[in-house]
Amino acid sequence: MSVIQKQQISVGEAISGHDHKITIFKVKGVNPGPKVYIQANLHGAELQGNAVIYQLLERLSQIEICGEMTIVPQANPIGLNQKSGDYTYGRFDPVTGVNWNRMYHCDLSFLDEFVGRNIDASEQDIKTRFRAKLRESLKTAMANPFGLSTARRLCYSLQQMALEADIVLDLHTGPESSKHLYVPEYAKAQASYFNIPHVLLIPNEFDGALDEACFVPWWTLSNAFAEKGRQLEVMQQSYTVELGSEEMIDLEAAEHDCDSLMSYLSHMNVLSGCHYKPLNMTRYGCYLKDYKIVYAPKGGLVEYKAPFGEVLPAGEPLARFLNIDKYGEDDVLTTVTLPGDAIPILHNASSALLQGAELYKVFYQYFELPQGD
Amino acid sequence: MSVIQKQQISVGEAISGHDHKITIFKVKGVNPGPKVYIQANLHGAELQGNAVIYQLLERLSQIEICGEMTIVPQANPIGLNQKSGDYTYGRFDPVTGVNWNRMYHCDLSFLDEFVGRNIDASEQDIKTRFRAKLRESLKTAMANPFGLSTARRLCYSLQQMALEADIVLDLHTGPESSKHLYVPEYAKAQASYFNIPHVLLIPNEFDGALDEACFVPWWTLSNAFAEKGRQLEVMQQSYTVELGSEEMIDLEAAEHDCDSLMSYLSHMNVLSGCHYKPLNMTRYGCYLKDYKIVYAPKGGLVEYKAPFGEVLPAGEPLARFLNIDKYGEDDVLTTVTLPGDAIPILHNASSALLQGAELYKVFYQYFELPQGD
Amino acid sequence: MSVIQKQQISVGEAISGHDHKITIFKVKGVNPGPKVYIQANLHGAELQGNAVIYQLLERLSQIEICGEMTIVPQANPIGLNQKSGDYTYGRFDPVTGVNWNRMYHCDLSFLDEFVGRNIDASEQDIKTRFRAKLRESLKTAMANPFGLSTARRLCYSLQQMALEADIVLDLHTGPESSKHLYVPEYAKAQASYFNIPHVLLIPNEFDGALDEACFVPWWTLSNAFAEKGRQLEVMQQSYTVELGSEEMIDLEAAEHDCDSLMSYLSHMNVLSGCHYKPLNMTRYGCYLKDYKIVYAPKGGLVEYKAPFGEVLPAGEPLARFLNIDKYGEDDVLTTVTLPGDAIPILHNASSALLQGAELYKVFYQYFELPQGD
Amino acid sequence: MSVIQKQQISVGEAISGHDHKITIFKVKGVNPGPKVYIQANLHGAELQGNAVIYQLLERLSQIEICGEMTIVPQANPIGLNQKSGDYTYGRFDPVTGVNWNRMYHCDLSFLDEFVGRNIDASEQDIKTRFRAKLRESLKTAMANPFGLSTARRLCYSLQQMALEADIVLDLHTGPESSKHLYVPEYAKAQASYFNIPHVLLIPNEFDGALDEACFVPWWTLSNAFAEKGRQLEVMQQSYTVELGSEEMIDLEAAEHDCDSLMSYLSHMNVLSGCHYKPLNMTRYGCYLKDYKIVYAPKGGLVEYKAPFGEVLPAGEPLARFLNIDKYGEDDVLTTVTLPGDAIPILHNASSALLQGAELYKVFYQYFELPQGD
Repeated sequence: MSVIQKQQISVGEAISGHDHKITIFKVKGVNPGPKVYIQANLHGAELQGNAVIYQLLERLSQIEICGEMTIVPQANPIGLNQKSGDYTYGRFDPVTGVNWNRMYHCDLSFLDEFVGRNIDASEQDIKTRFRAKLRESLKTAMANPFGLSTARRLCYSLQQMALEADIVLDLHTGPESSKHLYVPEYAKAQASYFNIPHVLLIPNEFDGALDEACFVPWWTLSNAFAEKGRQLEVMQQSYTVELGSEEMIDLEAAEHDCDSLMSYLSHMNVLSGCHYKPLNMTRYGCYLKDYKIVYAPKGGLVEYKAPFGEVLPAGEPLARFLNIDKYGEDDVLTTVTLPGDAIPILHNASSALLQGAELYKVFYQYFELPQGD
Repeated sequence: MSVIQKQQISVGEAISGHDHKITIFKVKGVNPGPKVYIQANLHGAELQGNAVIYQLLERLSQIEICGEMTIVPQANPIGLNQKSGDYTYGRFDPVTGVNWNRMYHCDLSFLDEFVGRNIDASEQDIKTRFRAKLRESLKTAMANPFGLSTARRLCYSLQQMALEADIVLDLHTGPESSKHLYVPEYAKAQASYFNIPHVLLIPNEFDGALDEACFVPWWTLSNAFAEKGRQLEVMQQSYTVELGSEEMIDLEAAEHDCDSLMSYLSHMNVLSGCHYKPLNMTRYGCYLKDYKIVYAPKGGLVEYKAPFGEVLPAGEPLARFLNIDKYGEDDVLTTVTLPGDAIPILHNASSALLQGAELYKVFYQYFELPQGD
Repeated sequence: MSVIQKQQISVGEAISGHDHKITIFKVKGVNPGPKVYIQANLHGAELQGNAVIYQLLERLSQIEICGEMTIVPQANPIGLNQKSGDYTYGRFDPVTGVNWNRMYHCDLSFLDEFVGRNIDASEQDIKTRFRAKLRESLKTAMANPFGLSTARRLCYSLQQMALEADIVLDLHTGPESSKHLYVPEYAKAQASYFNIPHVLLIPNEFDGALDEACFVPWWTLSNAFAEKGRQLEVMQQSYTVELGSEEMIDLEAAEHDCDSLMSYLSHMNVLSGCHYKPLNMTRYGCYLKDYKIVYAPKGGLVEYKAPFGEVLPAGEPLARFLNIDKYGEDDVLTTVTLPGDAIPILHNASSALLQGAELYKVFYQYFELPQGD
Repeated sequence: MSVIQKQQISVGEAISGHDHKITIFKVKGVNPGPKVYIQANLHGAELQGNAVIYQLLERLSQIEICGEMTIVPQANPIGLNQKSGDYTYGRFDPVTGVNWNRMYHCDLSFLDEFVGRNIDASEQDIKTRFRAKLRESLKTAMANPFGLSTARRLCYSLQQMALEADIVLDLHTGPESSKHLYVPEYAKAQASYFNIPHVLLIPNEFDGALDEACFVPWWTLSNAFAEKGRQLEVMQQSYTVELGSEEMIDLEAAEHDCDSLMSYLSHMNVLSGCHYKPLNMTRYGCYLKDYKIVYAPKGGLVEYKAPFGEVLPAGEPLARFLNIDKYGEDDVLTTVTLPGDAIPILHNASSALLQGAELYKVFYQYFELPQGD
């Protein structure tokens, strides 16, 4: 029974001079609660988040929520519409090569002074004032007298909405991929509320992505207070949710992905009058430093042999290269193995690889995560 | 026990000035028999033919053949190596946009005179002399004083080998596709020797492709003799074999594709001391004019609903578009149907479609083909 | 003092589901006169036509016209916005590789019947009825039950406007290019009203382009009447105006290009109360069959030696290739010459060429055109 | 009279399985002297360095040198051959979007220990041992058990040669650009030996580029010794030489660029029996932090108004945007100015700009550099 409101904003201008517009859905709760920001399809080929948002809007229209939600499907009008053959060239700005998800803003140079001034402030005041500082910092960055690059303007425009939220969910996909979740280390316990078996634990480092841009300031704030002897919970949670493979949508699969989000949102008390429980499953964690890219050791055509999500023992075939031009020589077929056990999470979208292409990404040191409540 | 010989030829020069080389495998029979030419991967992303050639070479090395075979995997060194993101931009020359498989040569302006001179010649003489004329015609085209375009040079270089053959197999794939076979109408009966359930029957028209460039001259020759009152069998057979989806290889699936080729080659008496029989299956035919491209009736994200190879009754869902920005409006979901029954054969490789993108290709008027012997 | 009205139409839908819109300017005369259609930038990188249209609108706003004008800058919202690095990938549909200017419609299967019915009709009736038939033919093509490709939808949408006009000017540019003009052979005498020294004379053949799609039907109509013994002037004129090099605009140069268009329009009695005279210049003609593409005879880095618009005698350096990897060998530098005299008109936009890239385009058999009145 | 030797090395493997080879020229002096490494065309479209190397080899073949030179034209076989339309998509790896010139190696974690051990060593020993450590560090990086990305393999392969040199010259170009030079701040005085009027002074920070990868270790070494109280000259000099615009070669202009390099090499005592003096010119410097990218403040078609190399006073037109769709509105033409004086150095290669595209790069705080001797 929630009312879903719709608006459009401009996130830049096309060569034609027309605005690049995105559509935003707003859902307001009757009761107070957390602010949630959900975004999908920042990378142009990562489509499934839109299907998940469709299912989510369907669910939300049946229930009430607490707090408010801002939902942005198709967050990148340039990337979504950039084709190269049948495929979408959507990971990088086609002009500058930058990864669209590495252009967010994080400048905490004001932090020391802020902590000094607010060391005895109430938690609510700290939250309000710190968010105001983040807002101001972003605004200053957007007012750069020499302008903003295309990708920064897009990211900053999105970030203006995201920074108002207590909870941020950034919906992505891999190339050919299983589902996995990026979780800040401090929020590890929350991973059990998503129906996603593989969890990357990421440190307090800003590398340009939206989830980091959202939680790093708050985590850093907590750390700074802790150094001054005051315990302060991290007041923000951000996740990058990887929904599987790119270039496709599946509305039925999206129902399951939606269950997963509803379970987490339910746990966070965003939903009213309904309850979604997480699925019972074994969840595996891996620190970001142990999430290894296995680069193609040679050029050629590759068969992907290792299925996603299952432990591949050391020495077992990960992939097999065919170099048909070498037929009759020893190395017409070459098997690739890893020196230790690993869980393959995703692989390249093509079998045609240059030497050094990303072959697989794997959890190299993994561990079982505790079950949730 | 066949000996497989390997050589390299140049099919052009890169910007670096180095040769674009391709590798050619030659298999010579102990006994006389037809000349066979097999090629794969002219379109850069169409990889599976290389896996099939691998399996074929494995088989040939175990047996003797009659006649001789020339086998060219990775026929297009430019297209194979042209990447755009993870994917291969391999259907078109990236500089000129031309489809690599539309640049072959066919000029039959010499035909009338040839038929006049050879109206009473023996079949063998006609065959030898006609091939000499084709060779000469191609050579003249290659000697164009203003040069050749990149794509023509590549195609003509391949065609120099193909035109020497009695049997030509050009191994392709679709984007996301089921297996299907292009067969000239006069060779319809041969379709039952391939293990491929869907068969396109193509007319005697040259539209630039290798199969046409190979059979159109010989079919036209037969027609011209027929007009003069002499019956002459078409002395050439060319097929485009579509092996499924692009961007992947699968050596196990390649075994089955190889069985299919071996069955046809066996029937054509190319193989010695072994016999491959075609699988028992229902085969459907469709004339090229009834092989319909269904264009996306709108822009959006599409779910492909209709499976390949099964009859989709008129009015049943072929695909469904999601326009998430229209959530709350009538047309957030749109189902696409066809006005008549059809068999879907392939669809676009992406769910993200511009209005007018190729959504599906379907057999629109299809019929059961007779079984082979 | 003309009033310039502005409207937008949709020519397709983006993946986002939003319309691809183009802006159309309409200028109505107080007195009757010819209908004129002007379009620019169908190829995404060919920008200068927009600058010319800017100057044209400035002029038109100062004068009255006879008849009416429809002016479409930025005719291709997909091509204009398709970037690949700094450059615009605008000549071909990035998905299908088709040249955007080869997708117009021309189906004259109704012609014989039409001529039979109208053999004694008045010239005005013939004109009105023939245009109605063309309109109907295009409409039928647009209603294809299997849909239209992206490029066809765009071209047909533009053609719907162009086919209403007596005069069509399609503004293009080359890669690196001098100014030149495509003129149908029957309209050769009109070439002297444009300030463009190099003129291509094109035959009555439809090869997909807008100018052909516009004049071929009318020329064919005249021919058909002539065969029946009735002389009928060709009632349509279409020109492709090549304004120089792509990827740049220059508002000052656009003034001169605008003078050229105004001179022609003045001659055609479109302008009222002002008179533009063509410049005095020697104009050279060349038949389309003699407009030769010189393909790069090798791969390498090329210096373009021959300036545009000047006769290059046979054997003189057209270009010089550097193959630096061959330093120390004979062919580190290679000079390219032509076997006969030629006038270079344009060359490739890059010095880095694959063997077979378009090196230069040249008038190979040229002749001086008569001066106008 | 120098003998120029040629060899090829592999820097990776193509999808075809064939090696990506580059050609290396070696010139050995009769007398001892510095080791020089010169490379060109790491970015695929930046061609002019090859023409300069041609002229350089021509000169070197006439004289003797001291020390030895390693010269690598066409350093990037992938980038050079990657086309998108006529243009070369050569700045970024087309698969991963990374800038080819940001993937070099610099890991100085061994430095403190090294300085401790060598605090009293001779300058020559320090040099030899430090280079051995750099060599070892790079070798370790290349032996990564999970492999190397395509771009890293290329860069590291080149760096293996560059790190052996005392002097490194990396030849680049801009998009549309004037000549300029990147010089480490400590080597500022050397700028006067190049015939290049605009000089960027770069700090001791590694941002992935070759020049930085080469000089940062040695500068850091000097700093570390200085902290321990020992003065040690920086024993390495690296420069990025920007030769003008991309996508073209000009052998005559290359003569002048070659004079510039010869002048510097002469000053560094690399040349024997000849003397090249730098041209008398005013040279302007600018710190890297003041080298401003001016981003397009809007989308549209742009006229570049400000010429390169001349002071543009604050408020004067830098560029002018045409938004033809807005004809009749206020903002059909928009002039872009800067808030302070600046010297434009380069601009975008296209007039068709997205909002946020790199419009110009300018020296924003510049100063006159002292003349050389």
